[in-house]
Amino acid sequence: MVVRGITVQVFEGQVEAFKAATIRNRAGSIGEPGILRFDILQNSDEPTLFFLYEVYVSEKATLAHKETDHYKTWKTAVESMMSAPRKGMAYTVIDPVDEDEW
Amino acid sequence: MVVRGITVQVFEGQVEAFKAATIRNRAGSIGEPGILRFDILQNSDEPTLFFLYEVYVSEKATLAHKETDHYKTWKTAVESMMSAPRKGMAYTVIDPVDEDEW
Repeated sequence: MVVRGITVQVFEGQVEAFKAATIRNRAGSIGEPGILRFDILQNSDEPTLFFLYEVYVSEKATLAHKETDHYKTWKTAVESMMSAPRKGMAYTVIDPVDEDEW
Repeated sequence: MVVRGITVQVFEGQVEAFKAATIRNRAGSIGEPGILRFDILQNSDEPTLFFLYEVYVSEKATLAHKETDHYKTWKTAVESMMSAPRKGMAYTVIDPVDEDEW
């Protein structure tokens, strides 16, 4: 498994629109065979700051995700909502190592 | 649900010791009734940087975790392994909202 943590800062007036667009992206994403989790989180102290926790079965699956319609639609939709470029972090899984636990 | 993201930077020589101590903490943590997930991740670009993704059923459960022996043992064990104070981030769950999906 590989995990991607994506931090997104949005404009104050775009919080609800960003949530809606990202929930739609998640709905498509969890149907992908290579995606194990796709959690949408909002920073509790800073409501314009979001964190997407995406768990893939492989690096290849991360690339396949970028080719999907739901991802491309999301990317275009949120472009003007972000107040700064989004930041992606790549993580290696230490534990749990069993795919069934994801 | 509430999510805590904990970022921990450790000294270069302490990477394996930190992994071992944290895996032990996780083994105890996932047995707690209030903990839904406890993922241990290592930054793929910076191996001394770790991220713990902890999902709780409630704020109360986050406090109960801090009272457990496995947490206290971990906290003491890793104190000297960290090269900077650890940083905790509190997140509100946007999606999935169903506890069964965690």
